[in-house]
Amino acid sequence: MQNRIIDLFEIKYPIIQGGMIWCSGWELASAVSNSGGLGLIGAGSMHPETLDIHIKKTKAATSKPFGVNVPLLYPDMDKIIEIIINNKVPIVFTSAGNPKTWTKTLQENGIKVAHVIANTKFALKCEEAGVDAIVAEGFEAGGHNGREETTTLCLIPRIKQEISIPLIAAGGIGSGQAMAAVFALGAEGVQIGSRFAASIESSGHEAFKTEIVKAAEGDTKLALKNLAPVRLLNNPFYQQVRELEQRGASLEDFKTLLGKGRAKKGMFQGDLVEGELEIGQVSAAITKIESVDEIIKTIVAEFNNTISEIGKLSV
Amino acid sequence: MQNRIIDLFEIKYPIIQGGMIWCSGWELASAVSNSGGLGLIGAGSMHPETLDIHIKKTKAATSKPFGVNVPLLYPDMDKIIEIIINNKVPIVFTSAGNPKTWTKTLQENGIKVAHVIANTKFALKCEEAGVDAIVAEGFEAGGHNGREETTTLCLIPRIKQEISIPLIAAGGIGSGQAMAAVFALGAEGVQIGSRFAASIESSGHEAFKTEIVKAAEGDTKLALKNLAPVRLLNNPFYQQVRELEQRGASLEDFKTLLGKGRAKKGMFQGDLVEGELEIGQVSAAITKIESVDEIIKTIVAEFNNTISEIGKLSV
Repeated sequence: MQNRIIDLFEIKYPIIQGGMIWCSGWELASAVSNSGGLGLIGAGSMHPETLDIHIKKTKAATSKPFGVNVPLLYPDMDKIIEIIINNKVPIVFTSAGNPKTWTKTLQENGIKVAHVIANTKFALKCEEAGVDAIVAEGFEAGGHNGREETTTLCLIPRIKQEISIPLIAAGGIGSGQAMAAVFALGAEGVQIGSRFAASIESSGHEAFKTEIVKAAEGDTKLALKNLAPVRLLNNPFYQQVRELEQRGASLEDFKTLLGKGRAKKGMFQGDLVEGELEIGQVSAAITKIESVDEIIKTIVAEFNNTISEIGKLSV
Repeated sequence: MQNRIIDLFEIKYPIIQGGMIWCSGWELASAVSNSGGLGLIGAGSMHPETLDIHIKKTKAATSKPFGVNVPLLYPDMDKIIEIIINNKVPIVFTSAGNPKTWTKTLQENGIKVAHVIANTKFALKCEEAGVDAIVAEGFEAGGHNGREETTTLCLIPRIKQEISIPLIAAGGIGSGQAMAAVFALGAEGVQIGSRFAASIESSGHEAFKTEIVKAAEGDTKLALKNLAPVRLLNNPFYQQVRELEQRGASLEDFKTLLGKGRAKKGMFQGDLVEGELEIGQVSAAITKIESVDEIIKTIVAEFNNTISEIGKLSV
């Protein structure tokens, strides 16, 4: 296959592993890149020094292209960008902020830039900012999420209509069938989070991975809509959040409950009661903890089968 | 194209027009059937005598198969079923109730039965009840909606895994690209509501159709989650609902606000302020009021193009 995402990132398969907090360190990122996809280190849960170590370890573990996902609301942005440039990281995915702030600086240093958005308005801002590709993420995605609640099936065609740069679909994708579906909608690549969060190489806690595998339909919820919407597994911590939401609690009450380190506690330390467990709706279809290589091989085979089956249709 | 949905309903295209309250009378249903799809009369907003008239008018206007959509919570169910049987309606789509209650009776009278669901648990109940096909409807759909909030992209593959009877996808589908996408997920037919609600032949009020065309991303909201979730356009009536939701109002307060006839007022009488306007997220992609025949021709052409384009891919 040849398309603009494959060409842009110089990868074999247009399959990108979402940069996730507490799950995507150097082991996951390098495994995905070694299997022909694009691995991303999730800088969102790393101190600058930790990120520096993960980048260096990724470079030692793979000769293939890889990237770093950087939430732009990060406190130490200058330092993070410096580390990325100094380490000659080839690709950066930015999110949660204005794509204008860092795109030019990164590109001037030879870095390809993609930005993650959840609506058409920001897709247009990305194009204006000159990013190389856009990741459009639907309502079913795990973790941080758009306020419009537009699903991937509705979001991708709308954005495709408005922009001309390459489009990567995210949210609800964990199989080759879903990959074929979003390609039918105009995407040229997929970003997959949940399925890689549950992989052997994910740095998520085993207990968290087991919860992902156990998750059934309806087990994830979009929470904290009045602060910053985030999709979580329905666990006792989510229930506490829900209680505050239902009684219209104050921002202070929410801040007190959230405290600090809830995501680390849940996803990295495996506290299924008090921790925050970010995962997508597609977790309901994930049935085992597998290696990255098995996951990518399965998705590629499913994609090829699906494409060849539906390619025969016409009405 | 040959598939089980085409064979089951004896139609040319596996495109089903959703049976919608206040929009899908005999004019819409017969136009869809005449254009090669399956038209459904929406019994949910009709008194039994009105339904009887619409069935007779549909039969006069088309020689093709058509159906009736029956929400099973309807107060006059015995009468409705009797009218359907007496008029020799060939196809019934049931929703909002237990598929076991009426499936056998209808089938014994030579009627094909499909049932609408939004989760795997009810899909399995449908198969047990012996329905001929299942409509699985995702979170992005207009009107009544599932509690799990599973999007079409996540719902269709899960249900496909669990059931073997023919599957029709609904929610977020208004184009041939989206039709190709859900076929990649395993659907053999699509049910389209919003785009037909905005058609010339829809009995919805002109002002409502104009609102559908004007709707942008994020303009529909899932409301009344604590009663029966329903997707609505964000208008002053929705804002009143939202206010009650945000202050955790009582069931009584909700009932007082809802009163009677809100949906008729909005969708049929065109009161955009006090009326309830049920529509799907895909309204953001609907840009004009067209005839049913133009809509179906466009969708078929888009589907064929998309299938032929992605049929060339393999990775």
